[in-house]
Amino acid sequence: MPLPPGVSERDFASALEEFRRVVGDAWVFSSDADLDLYRDAYSPLRGEDEDPVPSAAVAPKATEQVQEVVRIANRYKVPLWTISTGKNLGYGGSAPCVSGTVMLDVKRMDRIIEVDEKNHYALVEPGVSYFDLYRYIHERRLKVWIDTPDPGWGSLIGNALERGGGYTPMRDHFDAHCGMEVVLPNGDLLRTGMGALPNSKTWQQYRYGFGPYLDGIFSQSSLGVVTKMGFWLYPQPEAQRSGTVSVPRRRDLVPLMEHVNYLMNSYIAQGTIRIQSALSSFGPSDPGLAALRARPGGATLEDVERHVAGRGQPYWSVALPFYGPPNVIAAQWEYAKERLGAAIPGARFQDGPEYRFPLTEEQIARITNGVSLGIPSLQAFSYGAGTTRGHLWFAPIIPMTGEAILEAQEVLMTSLTELGVPLTALIPPQSYFPRSIVVFVGFPITADVATNRRTRDTYRTLVKTAQEHGWGEYRTHIQFMDDVMESYSFNDHALRRFHEQMKDAIDPNGILAPGKNGIWPARLRPGRA
Amino acid sequence: MPLPPGVSERDFASALEEFRRVVGDAWVFSSDADLDLYRDAYSPLRGEDEDPVPSAAVAPKATEQVQEVVRIANRYKVPLWTISTGKNLGYGGSAPCVSGTVMLDVKRMDRIIEVDEKNHYALVEPGVSYFDLYRYIHERRLKVWIDTPDPGWGSLIGNALERGGGYTPMRDHFDAHCGMEVVLPNGDLLRTGMGALPNSKTWQQYRYGFGPYLDGIFSQSSLGVVTKMGFWLYPQPEAQRSGTVSVPRRRDLVPLMEHVNYLMNSYIAQGTIRIQSALSSFGPSDPGLAALRARPGGATLEDVERHVAGRGQPYWSVALPFYGPPNVIAAQWEYAKERLGAAIPGARFQDGPEYRFPLTEEQIARITNGVSLGIPSLQAFSYGAGTTRGHLWFAPIIPMTGEAILEAQEVLMTSLTELGVPLTALIPPQSYFPRSIVVFVGFPITADVATNRRTRDTYRTLVKTAQEHGWGEYRTHIQFMDDVMESYSFNDHALRRFHEQMKDAIDPNGILAPGKNGIWPARLRPGRA
Repeated sequence: MPLPPGVSERDFASALEEFRRVVGDAWVFSSDADLDLYRDAYSPLRGEDEDPVPSAAVAPKATEQVQEVVRIANRYKVPLWTISTGKNLGYGGSAPCVSGTVMLDVKRMDRIIEVDEKNHYALVEPGVSYFDLYRYIHERRLKVWIDTPDPGWGSLIGNALERGGGYTPMRDHFDAHCGMEVVLPNGDLLRTGMGALPNSKTWQQYRYGFGPYLDGIFSQSSLGVVTKMGFWLYPQPEAQRSGTVSVPRRRDLVPLMEHVNYLMNSYIAQGTIRIQSALSSFGPSDPGLAALRARPGGATLEDVERHVAGRGQPYWSVALPFYGPPNVIAAQWEYAKERLGAAIPGARFQDGPEYRFPLTEEQIARITNGVSLGIPSLQAFSYGAGTTRGHLWFAPIIPMTGEAILEAQEVLMTSLTELGVPLTALIPPQSYFPRSIVVFVGFPITADVATNRRTRDTYRTLVKTAQEHGWGEYRTHIQFMDDVMESYSFNDHALRRFHEQMKDAIDPNGILAPGKNGIWPARLRPGRA
Repeated sequence: MPLPPGVSERDFASALEEFRRVVGDAWVFSSDADLDLYRDAYSPLRGEDEDPVPSAAVAPKATEQVQEVVRIANRYKVPLWTISTGKNLGYGGSAPCVSGTVMLDVKRMDRIIEVDEKNHYALVEPGVSYFDLYRYIHERRLKVWIDTPDPGWGSLIGNALERGGGYTPMRDHFDAHCGMEVVLPNGDLLRTGMGALPNSKTWQQYRYGFGPYLDGIFSQSSLGVVTKMGFWLYPQPEAQRSGTVSVPRRRDLVPLMEHVNYLMNSYIAQGTIRIQSALSSFGPSDPGLAALRARPGGATLEDVERHVAGRGQPYWSVALPFYGPPNVIAAQWEYAKERLGAAIPGARFQDGPEYRFPLTEEQIARITNGVSLGIPSLQAFSYGAGTTRGHLWFAPIIPMTGEAILEAQEVLMTSLTELGVPLTALIPPQSYFPRSIVVFVGFPITADVATNRRTRDTYRTLVKTAQEHGWGEYRTHIQFMDDVMESYSFNDHALRRFHEQMKDAIDPNGILAPGKNGIWPARLRPGRA
């Protein structure tokens, strides 16, 4: 395994020795077999020399140990890369940007410190997964819901810090957090928000505290190691239902999104929506459509629209989620039907199932994927299963309008076709975050080095194509962090210059996660791609 | 007028000369008469030598001018204090912490750059007031609402940056922002979130951008001058109604708040609530109660409860706000009545008026204070009018529970009585922010120096009393910023140490707002009280 950049073998050995004194011999790993587990299982560099490899891993059990580890790392200038439960698949898994980095594995810090059923919040450590917190709540029959992403083995803290999303009204995970405890790059311990007030009674109830509100700078960040974090939970609703609206024509997406925006921005419908289309790339595969596309010159949008109409299919459909008392959600769905029915000729509506809570164990057992009901799952992780060695997400944010979705679909389909990528990689746009849409392209990772190399080139091309259209990624794989940060270039990269100015001030030795999201400490900056 | 600390008369004159070259002679102010306007109209130091006085004011019209002014200030080490519309009454008005500071008055930057009716957002400059944006929207009959605080002459940007609150579902003004343009202390120009992507299509639609999320550090901050900011607007609802629930006994507040929390955290009721009590300090004055309190030894809580019950009054009442389609809000209020009626014996319910939107001009004219309908007003600013020279807010955050409100009421009433402050200073606790409660004590400011001095001592005592109970202020007057930051002392003031580390890195000359929220640049730090 490689050494950290600029660290002698002797210093490295001393650092590991000191780590062992802090966490115990059993919790410092340096064998190849152990370290293999920290590499990216879905790496687009699989089998290539450039695939990043850690030099060791250290797994503290408590905040004081994290502080000690960070102080030791500073003394020896050993870079650390923090992982919580270590998933993050499709974005780099647990692997660091720089080979030779030591993994700071905090999954042993797995205490659920508090769950408050009356004020609806939890305070947890980074090793707590969605499954863990769900089980804790379920066993005690507490009347609160978690919001879980796909899949449930992720860490609440890790996912929120990477700004992941879920499905219920609390789907924006970073937005749903309240209060942090952070080990700073110098080993100091900071509590944000009301946590800075000793004996605070509102650490998980009021976010901002006093003075500049810091929490954001610790998300997608290399400025600290979050050791505790609070999350607002959704009070267990009485019921949930969804209602699907379908519209017949391609251009109907424009008024459809306009009214969906109204419903969602008014909090009438709440939760993640998916914009499903009759096109195979946005929906179930269709051999007739594939044949149409295979003709010389491909299919025009009109061809596709005619084909869809001929099959009596709707062109677009959206399932609207409603959470609350039965009479309220019935009135909300009725209103949505009235509003959309009046606005879009040919709009059709289908009632989804209604659930009443708490569910019985039998009901829970029958649910295939319960993420929209706050039940963690690994179901969605069957994506690409069996056919590939993993996947790689390209995920730009686009406006929440029909025009933008149509444009993105056209641009991405054209690009993918030109680049020879199967259109099945393009999955339905979603609203993980309020007021915007994320489009996901899930590139397959294969066992073939040449194919993966082409995929990387394609990815980089798409980052540029997206930028030209004014769309930027919300998060990316470690291999493309420099490329994506490069695209956020307003005023000669003022954003990156500011981040690196903060980085140098807060982490002068460049210990924490060098290269993360394109931000490099001074001593490694010359190596930026 | 005083010079900035450590700046020679000659350098100061040169700086003003350079400011004039940037903004024009007419927009640099240095006469006593002009500068009086920038002092705190409600100053608790009125008539005392320590009352902070600016040395000059400069009023740029455009972002480039702000950049130039900041660069000049750096050259001469002249501190700047930014104000937008310059209100902030009760918290220091437009006055700086340090006498001799130059006011950076950006109220001439008053462009409403964009209002999007379909995605429900606005992009504005700092000189835009709530009245300005309301008029713009009203004149064009756009179907979006602003959320306004008391009172409406404030700046959207200034209020959100100070983390003010309003009344509708978008009441947490900082939370409702999306995207900033910031002039940094070195004069560089930064755009946050998706604004860092050139030609971005989602600057006002997705908050976080890529990498660490910075916006929070520019709130209650001295790290930049915000020159543009986006705000999410609420889509014009079809209707609004409120429903008041009243409960008879003091201890009923505990289950009342528990169920109110459920309703609000579930988004069934949305908007600011006030917890009104029969006690004169939390509600209308009552001579009988005053007589009871005036007895030797005062009134016990039991005395008060008996008195209230004897008058057939409820002990507590809360008006729940509902926004949305008529059938939805009717179902929401029905649900609230069922839930609260079943939980609290003796609970009574009263329907408030229902409004349908858009209102006619006649309806608008009849509304006294329309802040809960997104209509800015100056009505609430009649607070203390005629009897005092102004007021001073003490505003700690407490948990959103009945127990905490009862405790805060007791602690604050006892403290105020001991300190000889009229109990009318204690106004009803409110939920400006989700999941927590702000208690406001509005100390009167008088023309009498000795009285004001006692008020300041009382204020400082209350900061400490609150801290002992685990309650911290969300915002404070310039005179007490050091005291409040002092109370956020976890781990030997790790929060302040971190803020000052950032301050020194980002603003090495300590140009912007020295002392704001207790954060001092290195060169002025020794002067901390």
